[in-house]
Amino acid sequence: MKTVANPSQRLRLGFVGGGLESSIGATHRYAAQLDGHFELVAGVFARDPARNRAAAQAYGVAPERVYPDFQRMAVAEAARADGVQAVAIMAPNAVHVPASLAFLDQGIDVICDKPLASSLAEAQQLLERARKGPALHLLTHNYSGYPLVREARELIARGAIGEVRLVQVEHASAFGTHPLEQQGVKALAWRTDPAQAGASSVLADVGVHAHQLLRFVTGQEVSEVSAELSTLVPGRQSDDNAHVKLRLQNGARGMLWASFVAAGHRHGLQLRVFGSTGSLYWHQEEPDRLELRHQDQPHQILRRGEAWLSESARLSTRIKAGQPEGLLEAFANIYSEAAERIMARREHRAPGAQSLLCPTAEDGVRGMRFIDACVRSDAADGRWTQA
Amino acid sequence: MKTVANPSQRLRLGFVGGGLESSIGATHRYAAQLDGHFELVAGVFARDPARNRAAAQAYGVAPERVYPDFQRMAVAEAARADGVQAVAIMAPNAVHVPASLAFLDQGIDVICDKPLASSLAEAQQLLERARKGPALHLLTHNYSGYPLVREARELIARGAIGEVRLVQVEHASAFGTHPLEQQGVKALAWRTDPAQAGASSVLADVGVHAHQLLRFVTGQEVSEVSAELSTLVPGRQSDDNAHVKLRLQNGARGMLWASFVAAGHRHGLQLRVFGSTGSLYWHQEEPDRLELRHQDQPHQILRRGEAWLSESARLSTRIKAGQPEGLLEAFANIYSEAAERIMARREHRAPGAQSLLCPTAEDGVRGMRFIDACVRSDAADGRWTQA
Amino acid sequence: MKTVANPSQRLRLGFVGGGLESSIGATHRYAAQLDGHFELVAGVFARDPARNRAAAQAYGVAPERVYPDFQRMAVAEAARADGVQAVAIMAPNAVHVPASLAFLDQGIDVICDKPLASSLAEAQQLLERARKGPALHLLTHNYSGYPLVREARELIARGAIGEVRLVQVEHASAFGTHPLEQQGVKALAWRTDPAQAGASSVLADVGVHAHQLLRFVTGQEVSEVSAELSTLVPGRQSDDNAHVKLRLQNGARGMLWASFVAAGHRHGLQLRVFGSTGSLYWHQEEPDRLELRHQDQPHQILRRGEAWLSESARLSTRIKAGQPEGLLEAFANIYSEAAERIMARREHRAPGAQSLLCPTAEDGVRGMRFIDACVRSDAADGRWTQA
Amino acid sequence: MKTVANPSQRLRLGFVGGGLESSIGATHRYAAQLDGHFELVAGVFARDPARNRAAAQAYGVAPERVYPDFQRMAVAEAARADGVQAVAIMAPNAVHVPASLAFLDQGIDVICDKPLASSLAEAQQLLERARKGPALHLLTHNYSGYPLVREARELIARGAIGEVRLVQVEHASAFGTHPLEQQGVKALAWRTDPAQAGASSVLADVGVHAHQLLRFVTGQEVSEVSAELSTLVPGRQSDDNAHVKLRLQNGARGMLWASFVAAGHRHGLQLRVFGSTGSLYWHQEEPDRLELRHQDQPHQILRRGEAWLSESARLSTRIKAGQPEGLLEAFANIYSEAAERIMARREHRAPGAQSLLCPTAEDGVRGMRFIDACVRSDAADGRWTQA
Repeated sequence: MKTVANPSQRLRLGFVGGGLESSIGATHRYAAQLDGHFELVAGVFARDPARNRAAAQAYGVAPERVYPDFQRMAVAEAARADGVQAVAIMAPNAVHVPASLAFLDQGIDVICDKPLASSLAEAQQLLERARKGPALHLLTHNYSGYPLVREARELIARGAIGEVRLVQVEHASAFGTHPLEQQGVKALAWRTDPAQAGASSVLADVGVHAHQLLRFVTGQEVSEVSAELSTLVPGRQSDDNAHVKLRLQNGARGMLWASFVAAGHRHGLQLRVFGSTGSLYWHQEEPDRLELRHQDQPHQILRRGEAWLSESARLSTRIKAGQPEGLLEAFANIYSEAAERIMARREHRAPGAQSLLCPTAEDGVRGMRFIDACVRSDAADGRWTQA
Repeated sequence: MKTVANPSQRLRLGFVGGGLESSIGATHRYAAQLDGHFELVAGVFARDPARNRAAAQAYGVAPERVYPDFQRMAVAEAARADGVQAVAIMAPNAVHVPASLAFLDQGIDVICDKPLASSLAEAQQLLERARKGPALHLLTHNYSGYPLVREARELIARGAIGEVRLVQVEHASAFGTHPLEQQGVKALAWRTDPAQAGASSVLADVGVHAHQLLRFVTGQEVSEVSAELSTLVPGRQSDDNAHVKLRLQNGARGMLWASFVAAGHRHGLQLRVFGSTGSLYWHQEEPDRLELRHQDQPHQILRRGEAWLSESARLSTRIKAGQPEGLLEAFANIYSEAAERIMARREHRAPGAQSLLCPTAEDGVRGMRFIDACVRSDAADGRWTQA
Repeated sequence: MKTVANPSQRLRLGFVGGGLESSIGATHRYAAQLDGHFELVAGVFARDPARNRAAAQAYGVAPERVYPDFQRMAVAEAARADGVQAVAIMAPNAVHVPASLAFLDQGIDVICDKPLASSLAEAQQLLERARKGPALHLLTHNYSGYPLVREARELIARGAIGEVRLVQVEHASAFGTHPLEQQGVKALAWRTDPAQAGASSVLADVGVHAHQLLRFVTGQEVSEVSAELSTLVPGRQSDDNAHVKLRLQNGARGMLWASFVAAGHRHGLQLRVFGSTGSLYWHQEEPDRLELRHQDQPHQILRRGEAWLSESARLSTRIKAGQPEGLLEAFANIYSEAAERIMARREHRAPGAQSLLCPTAEDGVRGMRFIDACVRSDAADGRWTQA
Repeated sequence: MKTVANPSQRLRLGFVGGGLESSIGATHRYAAQLDGHFELVAGVFARDPARNRAAAQAYGVAPERVYPDFQRMAVAEAARADGVQAVAIMAPNAVHVPASLAFLDQGIDVICDKPLASSLAEAQQLLERARKGPALHLLTHNYSGYPLVREARELIARGAIGEVRLVQVEHASAFGTHPLEQQGVKALAWRTDPAQAGASSVLADVGVHAHQLLRFVTGQEVSEVSAELSTLVPGRQSDDNAHVKLRLQNGARGMLWASFVAAGHRHGLQLRVFGSTGSLYWHQEEPDRLELRHQDQPHQILRRGEAWLSESARLSTRIKAGQPEGLLEAFANIYSEAAERIMARREHRAPGAQSLLCPTAEDGVRGMRFIDACVRSDAADGRWTQA
């Protein structure tokens, strides 16, 4: 089980994005805070100077370490003896790559929110740079951090459901059910603006989560897609729903559904994987429960914290079975593994095996490739298209 | 609420199929028995004479009313003063149309299991004949019989979830997980033999149930499909999985998943419909529960038997809320509505409104058209194809 | 699996009670109808002659076999060559014993609804008579008929949860939440009239179901109780809630909760049994699901119809796993087992082992003894009292 | 919604207990860490000097602020300019009162784990002292911190289920299923040693949680009990199961079940409250879900984070509906409310209304009074006894 880290070993962290009105920023702060591996000491939190300063003050960041843009922040922090050791990027998608490059170039490790980039080409460019090191580029695909998502991965790897044949994955949220962008709701306005959101808004925002969950758990890549991107809310500028048929590397088949308009859903992320002898079911809204449904035996319900779970699941949890954990804990696992990766690099040692579960730019490129293929298939009347 | 019918008003029923080893035959007998509207008095239960006689004896059918084939049965029963008033057909798919025609031609009402036919052309031919009357052709799409499926239909019709935008429907069963047809298991052998099962085994067997459920509840037709039919079990002769993207008449989008190989599932029929203000969720394995998930209000759980349900739901049930009902009750609703349709025709009166919910050959043709479109889309690399 | 019986072997059945307005009567008719072992041919359905005749007509019972009272019915039917072979009693509680005695004295087998009697003394008198035979006295404790209740019994008998230590059982219904008896609702009026309902209305009506379920599944008797009977709805004449602490024969402890006023519940019958190595959970509103919760292994979900269930569970079902069954099926199991017991007695052979699961007057006396002990404990300030 | 506090405003916190092997200590550290209101700077973590030092080192506590006992810690910290502003006590039960007194006497605010004391007399003595102030005495009844527990409290207060009539509450855990204390498992050894655990081990450990949950949500006090305390595991020195019938202040009735031996349970805390028009159901293992079950309307499912919840529920959460929260978040709510209470006292202002939800020594005395009454009722053959 995990525990709160020794505060004397905290890494100095900077933020790009995450102002006071940013919901994802608040979540990143919690995720970085929970295990105590990081201390927020610098940042560019908002474009507007007043809002930038207000956030810094609320977060306890010294005024001299609040920057007007990420370029100046990267240079200035790299120059300080007590400069940030890592930066977390949670600005809009189009900022992800340029900001990442700026910090990588200064040797500062990057913890970037998904999607990696706003286009496949940009993502590939970043990956190429990241591979050169020495700084790391890590990606907060937070749902990979759930203990039972890790258990599912382990179960499949050791054959608990046989050969994977079918995957049904969905991240069908509901926050775009009403055209609130037309009433000035910001969070929806930038998401439904193709200029800011990229070629497929719904895939960039939620689809890549589903895609990453599928990859993480099955260990398979999506090889071909047959996709439809739709706009189901009248007057919307971007897509808001994607239905994608999948062919996986090993010949398995699947479906991925990503949506903003699954009215009545609260979050809507779930995964089902069917193999030759059984299946797994996990739903993010009840994350401490994993169904292992044998074809030829009684179904089993696995719960986080139980003695028979894999080491990977056990290393991802903080409290006993029957005491619920949630998203912040899962997200904190990603941050803590990022901390271990960063620490290990600085200490010139191999990182702990568990920390290798933290997604990276490689995963991010896979996600962008998936989006790209879906956009092409949609344009080609739904024909099968390589991913 | 329904009640057991007066036995003096039972209709005389014949069977085509439904021998002692037939699981669907046993279910039809229960469905016809429960409300007491029918009495089984004649039949051709099996091709093998000994098995035919054995079934008749077990069912209490007089030896002189056991026939070697449906042709002779139709003629002979039509000639008797106490001949069957209706026939239930549950023989293999290829028998559905010829047997239906034989009885229709003798003026005997037909209650036929799904799928209506083994090809679209054959189905259309039957529909043409059925339209001429006077005998009726009814189809036992039994899942339409559940009280809460009817409630869902009513709720959508009266706008409880707004305009329908998305439908996710699946009938993902698991009985073909292992290649038991290669070990001589009959029920799987004929289902996976394309000669007997038609162009898509998985769609004919379970896909049409999902398709009908979608149509029945939403009141929408599928207008276009982008489909993939797959064979996921090595060595299998037929398909065993279908993934279908849907476009509905009103512009809504959807996905239909039909499978024999969803390992670990027990039956796997469920429906989700998303509208502009909320959604509905129903799962056949907990049939007395319907989730009405408002986008802007607390979610509601509706249960069969509750005072606030529609008349249609109330007319479809027999016991109080909190006392569970199941498949036999749903199936019996179809049989009882068939009885009312048949009775009304004989009495030259309009049938009760509720009995119009019983599916007919029209619905069967829709199902066959759907299969046909999926097969064509699959052959066309997944391109969108009119249904 | 069960199947519809051969109609030529139907037993001739009479009813005492079960008029057109009787909800339990309608349920008995369905339970007797489903498997086809009985034919309703005589009865006294209501005290009012017109309502008595109306019911007979609706049920297809010949006018000459409708009787003004059970005494005349017993004598007249016993005198007919085609007289009833069994009688089902579903009149108010106070009628159970006198009617039972009248038919037993004529050698007619009795299928009686619960509770057995309106007092312990009366119940014991009946048991004494029933033991002399030759006619049988069977009790429709219908919840004993569920396949997974039988599976639970088998699992405990073979040690699947170790030694039983704790039982938490409840039948907490809600139909008395509002004082509808004060507004003339009949079903509630007689239930809350101590003269008709006996010493504890709530225990006679629902408490004995919980008590029987506990006994049936654990194989243990309640040896001592510490009870409180309460009236929670102002102005009510009877009790409407009972909280009972239990000590079982083997030293286990437990709690039984019976209620009319568990507002918002739909039916509210559930059982949990905890042993030295695991526990079982069953809830009547999802009857096809049984949780087997090992202490030292993953929890299991057992579903009706699965291959690994006991023979007893398999003999209690009609359709496949994943196709839901409900109360009528469970109740029909009791009726079918009664049919086998009656048939076996008439054929001078031992009844099939499964039919011995059908409860009898012995069980009924246990229930009355439990009520009696609870009433005494309640009067003694909650002190422990022998049952 | 809550957010991570400004680190510059952290309160200096000391620990009594919470060494490296202490599971509850780890949980307290997380709860104090999450919202960032506290910094751990001093403590006595273990009796053994080496383990005491090891914990301090792991927690980043300076060696000079590690103390051999709470007495010396209280005096020394009170003397420092940078001394602790609050102390969290999570040592064994018998330490709670003496340690609390030591810090209160030095004017240091106390955050104490439950149960408040090891006897009612001791608890009353502490309360008397705490009332004199000026330092505060707060109690970490952590389950009171769940957002939907607060919603339940609000719903009842505003009449959403009418007048409370029935409460069924249980904390039935399973960690004592096996007699592991006989194999040297420490956590069970002290819990089952009456000298350390007090008059009722099971009530002190889990029963008071159920009792507090009931009080917190209903706003009612338990006025009388009829209890049985049992030892269900052979050879155990303490009780391990308690069944308690309840009478509440307002005339409502209830049952409380506390257990160590509910084999197969993972944690087992749940609450059901039934009123005159509906009921509420909450289960700690799915804490983001609250059922509001109207008697005369469809049931509702409320989820944490939804727009229509009370302010109290909204102020207790950090992330959106559909993103799960868990125990650490609930526990952190208690810590953050404690921080507000402490801060307000130091700033001579009224604390925020929400912080008044944090339990205090008054609640602790109620819990001890409940235990005391149960022990007396048990000794009096289950008779009703004033609480």
